[in-house]
Amino acid sequence: MCLTNRLSQKPSLMMNRFDLKSYFSSKREQINEALDSIFKNTSSEIVKAMKYSLMAGGKRIRPVLCVASAETVGCQDQDMIRAACALEMIHTYSLIHDDLPAMDNDDIRRGRPTCHVAFDEATAILAGDGLLTLAFEVLSSVKNIQENHVLNWMNVIHTLSTAAGYKGMIEGQMQDMAAEGHLLCLEELENMHALKTGALIEASVTVGATLGNASFDQIQQLKAYAKNIGLAFQVTDDLLDVEGDPNIMGKDVGSDQARSKSTYPALLGIEQSKTFAKKLVNNALKALDYFDNKAHPLRAIAYYIVDRKK
Amino acid sequence: MCLTNRLSQKPSLMMNRFDLKSYFSSKREQINEALDSIFKNTSSEIVKAMKYSLMAGGKRIRPVLCVASAETVGCQDQDMIRAACALEMIHTYSLIHDDLPAMDNDDIRRGRPTCHVAFDEATAILAGDGLLTLAFEVLSSVKNIQENHVLNWMNVIHTLSTAAGYKGMIEGQMQDMAAEGHLLCLEELENMHALKTGALIEASVTVGATLGNASFDQIQQLKAYAKNIGLAFQVTDDLLDVEGDPNIMGKDVGSDQARSKSTYPALLGIEQSKTFAKKLVNNALKALDYFDNKAHPLRAIAYYIVDRKK
Repeated sequence: MCLTNRLSQKPSLMMNRFDLKSYFSSKREQINEALDSIFKNTSSEIVKAMKYSLMAGGKRIRPVLCVASAETVGCQDQDMIRAACALEMIHTYSLIHDDLPAMDNDDIRRGRPTCHVAFDEATAILAGDGLLTLAFEVLSSVKNIQENHVLNWMNVIHTLSTAAGYKGMIEGQMQDMAAEGHLLCLEELENMHALKTGALIEASVTVGATLGNASFDQIQQLKAYAKNIGLAFQVTDDLLDVEGDPNIMGKDVGSDQARSKSTYPALLGIEQSKTFAKKLVNNALKALDYFDNKAHPLRAIAYYIVDRKK
Repeated sequence: MCLTNRLSQKPSLMMNRFDLKSYFSSKREQINEALDSIFKNTSSEIVKAMKYSLMAGGKRIRPVLCVASAETVGCQDQDMIRAACALEMIHTYSLIHDDLPAMDNDDIRRGRPTCHVAFDEATAILAGDGLLTLAFEVLSSVKNIQENHVLNWMNVIHTLSTAAGYKGMIEGQMQDMAAEGHLLCLEELENMHALKTGALIEASVTVGATLGNASFDQIQQLKAYAKNIGLAFQVTDDLLDVEGDPNIMGKDVGSDQARSKSTYPALLGIEQSKTFAKKLVNNALKALDYFDNKAHPLRAIAYYIVDRKK
């Protein structure tokens, strides 16, 4: 499924030449270095558990979205990496807790044993707690914040805590668990995903844009982009759980069906789910018409999200 | 054990007249009202679980310490209540997670079933996550922050996230779990408590003082006060677990011994533990010599902490 030739929104010549793989690789390296350097007391068991999950080779989509969003509004501030790290910490905490026996009870994540399997349940709960808390410590490290930027950083903390909280990601996980065993309708499924994964993806671009001093209109367009790629990401995840290669993905497939989870393929069928994912990517690309070539990384990410194999 | 007549640090006449019960009652009412008004979507299951634990009639020592600390440095700002609420949320989240089957496996807290018993384990994990996250949402609600105070609030977020994180409270819980089944030495026990409960108590006074624009020296004295009452609080907790009345306390006693936990009575004996608690309170009162009558609430709290029956 190579979308670049299929979507109605044709990429420009320059866009065709944009090398997302190199872009991701370079950003990922910066993010991983920054994440690794944050921990002070590396000998403690809790830090081992936090780092075990955080440095397990995640795709870093959220931090890269944050940085790419800032670049889209013309900001190249290196300080952005700090916010990007916080996003990855919150994402990783949510994975650790979602994987727990009391929740999804998953043994494998990112190709290796989940945190509670590699350590124990109590340590995994605390490692998740530790990463969530550390995200806010990192965002509030005022020593490195210029005074005139403090209000932006405060807005970022508010955006992230709201997206990750009981009105966002946590409510999404509650709805996901409540839905197990019976089929949701499309609207319910979309609402659940908008909360469970969409809220943090939207926050990722909002955070980058906010720190890049974006205008209100720019932020609105970036949010529209994020809403669409967020859902496209989920539809693709559902498709990968049906059609993906477990060796490439580093986790089992077929688990949604085994748990009778509501998914797009289950509700719409495989082909219609693919069409829906493409429509969402088109919507995302339309929202980016507001921006110039600096939005090419975000455009390439939109293509990638439905094109990925893991 | 009425300390007011025994401690070498004699309270002044005005101090004798200070009515801590009324003070606590009035502050507690303000805090409870503020906590209750924070939740927007009260019909969701996750909000029910969060409020179940948050509004379960806790003593509110941390939020009251925060407000009293601000008052000590001459600040009566009503906005302080917001920070006080965040402190209680973080405290409650830590109780919910510590009570989980994978950790302390406690069934009763604040006189009623723990969160995971009243709801279920997954909901309890998420309710804890939700309260921790909400604390930072509340602290970063910039709409209500005067621009010239933003840096203070940012410092507060940093203080709290550091105290609650892997260098503070979380490491304390890790050490507490690791210690189960063998006796710690006094130094290890003190270090564990300094992290597990001391860090957040110290943060409570620091937060109040920071928002009250306290000087560096004032904050140092208040931290010394907090370190001492924090440990005194724990020594008293240990004593109550041996000598307390379960009907007054709303929880079982003797659980420390049943779990072979390291406690002050186990290491020092009951009488020496009481003497130690009094010494700590004396130290705390000495640190308050730096302040005038406005520190009377903090003085009264120091007496209360070792005098309490629950």
